[in-house]
Amino acid sequence: MTTVEHDGEARMGPNRYGKSGIRLATVARDGDRHTFTDLEIEVRLAGDFGAVHTDGDNAPVLPTDTMRGTCFALARDGIDSVAGYAQRLADRFLEASVATAKVWIRVFVYPWERVEVDGAPHDHTFRPATGGQRVLTLTQDRGGEPTITGGVRGARVLKTTGSAFSGYLEDQYTTLPATRDRIMATTMDITWGTTSPSVDHAALAEQVPATVLARFATHDDSESVQHTLHAMGAAVIDALPEVTWIRFQLPNEHHILADLSAYGLDNPNVVFLVADRPFGVIEGTVVRDGHTSEPGW
Amino acid sequence: MTTVEHDGEARMGPNRYGKSGIRLATVARDGDRHTFTDLEIEVRLAGDFGAVHTDGDNAPVLPTDTMRGTCFALARDGIDSVAGYAQRLADRFLEASVATAKVWIRVFVYPWERVEVDGAPHDHTFRPATGGQRVLTLTQDRGGEPTITGGVRGARVLKTTGSAFSGYLEDQYTTLPATRDRIMATTMDITWGTTSPSVDHAALAEQVPATVLARFATHDDSESVQHTLHAMGAAVIDALPEVTWIRFQLPNEHHILADLSAYGLDNPNVVFLVADRPFGVIEGTVVRDGHTSEPGW
Amino acid sequence: MTTVEHDGEARMGPNRYGKSGIRLATVARDGDRHTFTDLEIEVRLAGDFGAVHTDGDNAPVLPTDTMRGTCFALARDGIDSVAGYAQRLADRFLEASVATAKVWIRVFVYPWERVEVDGAPHDHTFRPATGGQRVLTLTQDRGGEPTITGGVRGARVLKTTGSAFSGYLEDQYTTLPATRDRIMATTMDITWGTTSPSVDHAALAEQVPATVLARFATHDDSESVQHTLHAMGAAVIDALPEVTWIRFQLPNEHHILADLSAYGLDNPNVVFLVADRPFGVIEGTVVRDGHTSEPGW
Amino acid sequence: MTTVEHDGEARMGPNRYGKSGIRLATVARDGDRHTFTDLEIEVRLAGDFGAVHTDGDNAPVLPTDTMRGTCFALARDGIDSVAGYAQRLADRFLEASVATAKVWIRVFVYPWERVEVDGAPHDHTFRPATGGQRVLTLTQDRGGEPTITGGVRGARVLKTTGSAFSGYLEDQYTTLPATRDRIMATTMDITWGTTSPSVDHAALAEQVPATVLARFATHDDSESVQHTLHAMGAAVIDALPEVTWIRFQLPNEHHILADLSAYGLDNPNVVFLVADRPFGVIEGTVVRDGHTSEPGW
Repeated sequence: MTTVEHDGEARMGPNRYGKSGIRLATVARDGDRHTFTDLEIEVRLAGDFGAVHTDGDNAPVLPTDTMRGTCFALARDGIDSVAGYAQRLADRFLEASVATAKVWIRVFVYPWERVEVDGAPHDHTFRPATGGQRVLTLTQDRGGEPTITGGVRGARVLKTTGSAFSGYLEDQYTTLPATRDRIMATTMDITWGTTSPSVDHAALAEQVPATVLARFATHDDSESVQHTLHAMGAAVIDALPEVTWIRFQLPNEHHILADLSAYGLDNPNVVFLVADRPFGVIEGTVVRDGHTSEPGW
Repeated sequence: MTTVEHDGEARMGPNRYGKSGIRLATVARDGDRHTFTDLEIEVRLAGDFGAVHTDGDNAPVLPTDTMRGTCFALARDGIDSVAGYAQRLADRFLEASVATAKVWIRVFVYPWERVEVDGAPHDHTFRPATGGQRVLTLTQDRGGEPTITGGVRGARVLKTTGSAFSGYLEDQYTTLPATRDRIMATTMDITWGTTSPSVDHAALAEQVPATVLARFATHDDSESVQHTLHAMGAAVIDALPEVTWIRFQLPNEHHILADLSAYGLDNPNVVFLVADRPFGVIEGTVVRDGHTSEPGW
Repeated sequence: MTTVEHDGEARMGPNRYGKSGIRLATVARDGDRHTFTDLEIEVRLAGDFGAVHTDGDNAPVLPTDTMRGTCFALARDGIDSVAGYAQRLADRFLEASVATAKVWIRVFVYPWERVEVDGAPHDHTFRPATGGQRVLTLTQDRGGEPTITGGVRGARVLKTTGSAFSGYLEDQYTTLPATRDRIMATTMDITWGTTSPSVDHAALAEQVPATVLARFATHDDSESVQHTLHAMGAAVIDALPEVTWIRFQLPNEHHILADLSAYGLDNPNVVFLVADRPFGVIEGTVVRDGHTSEPGW
Repeated sequence: MTTVEHDGEARMGPNRYGKSGIRLATVARDGDRHTFTDLEIEVRLAGDFGAVHTDGDNAPVLPTDTMRGTCFALARDGIDSVAGYAQRLADRFLEASVATAKVWIRVFVYPWERVEVDGAPHDHTFRPATGGQRVLTLTQDRGGEPTITGGVRGARVLKTTGSAFSGYLEDQYTTLPATRDRIMATTMDITWGTTSPSVDHAALAEQVPATVLARFATHDDSESVQHTLHAMGAAVIDALPEVTWIRFQLPNEHHILADLSAYGLDNPNVVFLVADRPFGVIEGTVVRDGHTSEPGW
């Protein structure tokens, strides 16, 4: 062991490792009223792991199965706060693995809502909620402050009017007809940064999507997905002072006005073809004046 | 053409053909208030198509692309009723294709709900609703009455207590611990038959899932998924006289109590492992006395 | 227990239960040469399980977790033959569960091939093979003979010429241009029956797809997917006397000649749009004279 | 138009836009021998698009639908070389859109192989090949040199011996048993950089995966996935002088030795549970001495 196997030109470059797809759920009980929390966790560690690769020396390796076990063990007393749980995991991995210089923790929250029975929310029966998954990502260098970003993935939304696309650049490959009234649909992936790692992440995880959704609905002079992206981002920057930047990744899920002319029919914005591929992709970040965004791609 | 190509022992047996994945949406406008209907349609035809296979004679073949076009054209004036739309499609295909003896039309409805803005449901902005997709299947023999079944697929639901599994048969391969308090989770596929093809299918598509969901929630002495299946089916048979049978396909989506003993921890029903595979499957039909169910597998 | 809970009009109808997604693999060692077998297993039982549903009486229930354990235990000595393994499972479940009147066992085989290293197949390194998954389904009534069908699912194939579609029925909703030279692509699901449950299923699992694939390739006067379906089925019936019927489910995966005329370009069968949805579906069974097929839909 | 809508603290930050999921295929004909090329293309543009977002001014926007059309039009004469096609697309978008400062083109190649008929590769019939999709990514700043990386995604591979995992760090959350003989399985995503954008990318797209695969097979003293990652990377750096760095993203697809002790059975490395989630993730780059890798995460 520990004789270097390789003396050619190859050098070990950047590396990290961890576990994905750790699926756990917790039940909290306040008398008969239960709270169900459903998580998927990703862990990554980076640091002094060169010899693991070059020499097959596993001494510094905390197994990814141990990461899994740690996630379960640290959930034993429940998940009061996703950010707090992520921080406890990060702290634990920095403690357990001296070779680790940087840790990444990402938590996805599967959303559930109470079923209504006889007009009242049920104490212990749930169904998936709409609105996408909450995402929280914590990164921390050993000895440094954590960075926490909030986010939502998979928040699908659609409006049947109030959206146009016209006045664009045309060249010899342009055949798209301009329109002043189209369906706009997207499935939003959103990430945001905050003024401090200790803001109320759970509150923002409600407030940001609600603000985005409301602005999506009311932005009825939309000239493009980009235009609405900015309007939604600006609404968040205006309304929520803890948010310093917000990034959107927005597929343009095309609903194409069906051409019925071959059948002798008009189509006054009634019937639309729902397309799978290709799809547009609009990516952009709206930043609070005087702040900068963190890299996302 | 039409010389038979094959004079061995091979004979053409049962066959049908059609189109799947026809994705269309419609917008209905009542002043500023829009209704968005989002469908996926499947069409199948069977009949006198033997020579299509044996001789390559396409004369009787209505192309599947024409089925697609027909679905779009017949949506031109909107989709007042899914059952009515399915019937118009079936009638049209029987009219267009004299070779057809039997037609199947299946319509999946992607569920959307109005976004709330300032506490009120928005006129033209929508997001996916929970509860699974509505399914309506119409089959019709030429000259006969249509058969229509309703259904829902993908209705996920979970309860954190009120479910047990104990007292089962044990053999040398049994290691499952009995429990009087477990999480029960499933994603329901439900199909039902009715007393007549002309019942109010849209109303039942609301009432059946609501009845099922409420009974799932309140059936707190559940001894098994089978037990709850029957309770839900019986609730529908009792409450909705138009329903003659109801069939459930229920995966048992295991939430396994995490064993934390290796870490020196107990686990008083707090932390659960969310498993992907394998999963249980419980299939069963509850039938109104004096009626019979139609085959589903 | 066993007091009937329900005395309304609801009666328990057809039902069965079991486990899906049992994923296991085995390694067999012939000296340094290993054989890797990768399976997914489904089990279903039906029988005298009415009171399980109506009364919550679990006494007759062999847990689905026990089915999982049995699949692992019975693989302890390796999987010499998929049919033999399926039979041992069926026998075991009939033995373990006296309430069971009928058992279904389905085995999917994930295909792997040896990696070539220095021109030779490697002893213990594998990668996924193309050609789809082998499927074997065994059903058995207590006291009866087993029925075994073979099959393949997900066998994708494409030809760039030798396929036409013309001469079809046209109506007012038909816009598809006829063509004498198109791309034909499909992902085949195939099921076949045999003269006896004791034929060499492993040999047929090689021979049937090979015969189908060769006929797909050489059937260059194809007038439709239906026409090729019959040609492939007839080739199997002619070549393999143990096969009594063969059923195909063939999506027509459309490759649409791109219309480049708007850009001032022709397109002499060079560029094709690869479409996702909708897609055609062609289903048909070819039967050996004097035999009948078993139901598949 | 062009009055700024927003005068709060929100500023438009980094942004880009484009199209994903452009699916096209081409057929090249050398007499009767056809070559089938099956692509998925992604396009992104970034540059002076701020007012598109803030003012709804679409004047600089080349529609994503035009990107789609351009991909089809520029495939009119076939795809001799994926790198050449990507370069023609990049050049065209820089020409068509003066607002664009940077363009990204990514091409995925769906792999197909000729079907063997009577022992010979067929002229015009194909089936999916194993080994994953080829990926080529070209990025170019206006006026600058292109950067091209090669890659493969989805290359699944497995070995049944020659892999160990032991000697790792243990803490109170570690329960994984050490092993000197396990199954190692992964689905590789690989990206590499080269000495020049004008190397033979098609040749490397064959040589790199072949070198990786061979080293995976022969690296039989593997102490970890990390160890094998380095061995594979070093093999590429040693064998292929045009490659300056190579990055791997390797899920550890766990095959867990089944514990059969509860059934009174041993398990001498015969039966394995194939797990879905969670899974390990090993990410690392091997770099040629004196070079640096480009960022990938």
